[in-house]
Amino acid sequence: MREVAVAGVGYTPFTRASGRPVLDLACDAALAACTDAGLDPALVDGVGTHSVGQDSEPAQAVATALASPGLRWVVDLAMAGQAPCHLVGLAADAIATGRAEAVLVFRALNGRSGAKVGSARFPGRGGPYRYPIGYGAYPMYIATWANRHLHETGQTTDDLGAVAVAHRRYAVLNDRAVVRTPLDLAGHRASPWVAEPFRVADCTREVDGACALLVTTLERARDLRRPPAVVAAAAYRAGPRPGLDLGDHVLTDDYTRNFTDLVRDELFRRAGVTPADVDVAELYDCFSSVVLMSLEGLGLCDRGAAGELVRSGALPVNTHGGLLGEGYLHGMNTVAEAVLQVQGRGGVRQSARHDVVVATSGALMDGSALVLTRDR
Amino acid sequence: MREVAVAGVGYTPFTRASGRPVLDLACDAALAACTDAGLDPALVDGVGTHSVGQDSEPAQAVATALASPGLRWVVDLAMAGQAPCHLVGLAADAIATGRAEAVLVFRALNGRSGAKVGSARFPGRGGPYRYPIGYGAYPMYIATWANRHLHETGQTTDDLGAVAVAHRRYAVLNDRAVVRTPLDLAGHRASPWVAEPFRVADCTREVDGACALLVTTLERARDLRRPPAVVAAAAYRAGPRPGLDLGDHVLTDDYTRNFTDLVRDELFRRAGVTPADVDVAELYDCFSSVVLMSLEGLGLCDRGAAGELVRSGALPVNTHGGLLGEGYLHGMNTVAEAVLQVQGRGGVRQSARHDVVVATSGALMDGSALVLTRDR
Repeated sequence: MREVAVAGVGYTPFTRASGRPVLDLACDAALAACTDAGLDPALVDGVGTHSVGQDSEPAQAVATALASPGLRWVVDLAMAGQAPCHLVGLAADAIATGRAEAVLVFRALNGRSGAKVGSARFPGRGGPYRYPIGYGAYPMYIATWANRHLHETGQTTDDLGAVAVAHRRYAVLNDRAVVRTPLDLAGHRASPWVAEPFRVADCTREVDGACALLVTTLERARDLRRPPAVVAAAAYRAGPRPGLDLGDHVLTDDYTRNFTDLVRDELFRRAGVTPADVDVAELYDCFSSVVLMSLEGLGLCDRGAAGELVRSGALPVNTHGGLLGEGYLHGMNTVAEAVLQVQGRGGVRQSARHDVVVATSGALMDGSALVLTRDR
Repeated sequence: MREVAVAGVGYTPFTRASGRPVLDLACDAALAACTDAGLDPALVDGVGTHSVGQDSEPAQAVATALASPGLRWVVDLAMAGQAPCHLVGLAADAIATGRAEAVLVFRALNGRSGAKVGSARFPGRGGPYRYPIGYGAYPMYIATWANRHLHETGQTTDDLGAVAVAHRRYAVLNDRAVVRTPLDLAGHRASPWVAEPFRVADCTREVDGACALLVTTLERARDLRRPPAVVAAAAYRAGPRPGLDLGDHVLTDDYTRNFTDLVRDELFRRAGVTPADVDVAELYDCFSSVVLMSLEGLGLCDRGAAGELVRSGALPVNTHGGLLGEGYLHGMNTVAEAVLQVQGRGGVRQSARHDVVVATSGALMDGSALVLTRDR
């Protein structure tokens, strides 16, 4: 089996209203990833993306726009924030088995088109089940998980605040971030409620934009412009009674843990590392509570100690400012930041230690994760 | 890398109006595939499916209904008839790399729900481009390809008739088939036009139903009830200017070839066989013309000689009666029939020689293909 690496990343600007078609955004990011890696786009033979309710363009449309001479691999996942690491994993499998050589994985969003993921009008499948009980949009729903998690672990909204403050510190240093006003704990406490325990500062900021990764063989990546970010392991896990939409999650048994609890063992075993080896964590954070749950689920700290870990600064977490600060590119940008950190390209936000970086995609009972490592 | 095999297949009855929710159909087929293989459904750790415009249920819903203890792999492809072989290929990659052990791949359709794939009201992306030029539904559109192909290769509607007649001969022998009245060439010539060169007998019959395959390691398949159908190779290919919907295909350069022309070399090279080794061909046939184009594209006969090959009976093609006869389960049943033939379970429709079976998914400029072989 061939080893696999991420060779480059590409972004459009993240904005609140791009005024551009989503296909433009996707192509810009895809080309930027090729340029970043130093790979001729004509050599791309695979494209993968994900979307929810046709809120984006198909992978093939991007390949067509890039004038790809031919594709050997296409994946259009009907999947939400669980998808980015999973897409890298699927691409890595195809590259490992020799069925693809260079795969672009992207996510493009353009809320101006009217299809905002977080909207109560969004055409999800769970609607009929959740609207009547007051779950009109994601914050209302995930708030119940957050409350239960805080209650069971003895943490408080100040622990959510620790996440928001730590993320903002990075966001202030990140030119791509859409939320760059400084925030301290007092500011978090003064932030207006959205749905208890979430304040505005605990919620992600939706943006227009796109982000793409170029995945290829480790061997080829070594010949390209950037240091390879080795895909040491990819794993997906759905727990009991998973679902593609919120309504299904009502059937879970434990609202204080998420998929990271389930994926942890396989992820680290396959990567050949332990949680103690992790230098940087880039964790999906549609809301601040997901960071606490995921730090605990991955075994990066004891249960109930996530807020304290974040406050301590001992482990760099979401060095781009998270989806809270950089913007909600549905977590593809979370994976891109993991790549930049492994590559040592984080600039003023770079972690001194960056041999092993873990990334996650997903908030609740299903999701995916990656361990990226430095080459050699 | 681990070797991979299909260990079992499952079907619901194919009907014109099931009166049942699509999730019921999907679960019945999925369980039937487990039973067929003799595998405990609790051991399934991956589920994959495809759908078009949310015309089905997500893979996770099936896993939930089957009370799967946990999933390590989920793929919901937003993809049409190109998907079945591609799904097997994606599952095979995950099994080969050790990321999944036993994957159910299914397609479920229930036209009664109102979302018929072939409908002009179907919410595809190409609508704005094709409706104004008269391409309201698939037969109208693909007819233009068929006409061009017949013209360029010197074949006629009698060659389409040869396909329809040969398929019907198998369908008559197939309890699952929805079209079982005998058909001869005179009957084909008398069949009413749908869109020239297509008569009713050239067009697939849409059905409600579901079909599932169980994919696992070759090693495990050897311990199960049925002889393994070894996945010798899976390949996907999209040509220049591919697209997820019809409108995009207007931009192709050659309307007389389809994706089989592009995928052939890699498919057979990876499988370690040649077209001359193929004993049975199970080819996607939304319309009869696609069989001609795919036989030629795969190199199973010379260009322009496909009708003659079918008439000769020298190569068993679509031994289930094709989608034309068994019913339009979007081609998942085409792959299932390939499995049955490799396994020697075709009953009265069994090909005497069945060491190497090729299957395809897709009609136009993108699609996927498999080579299945007998074990040892």
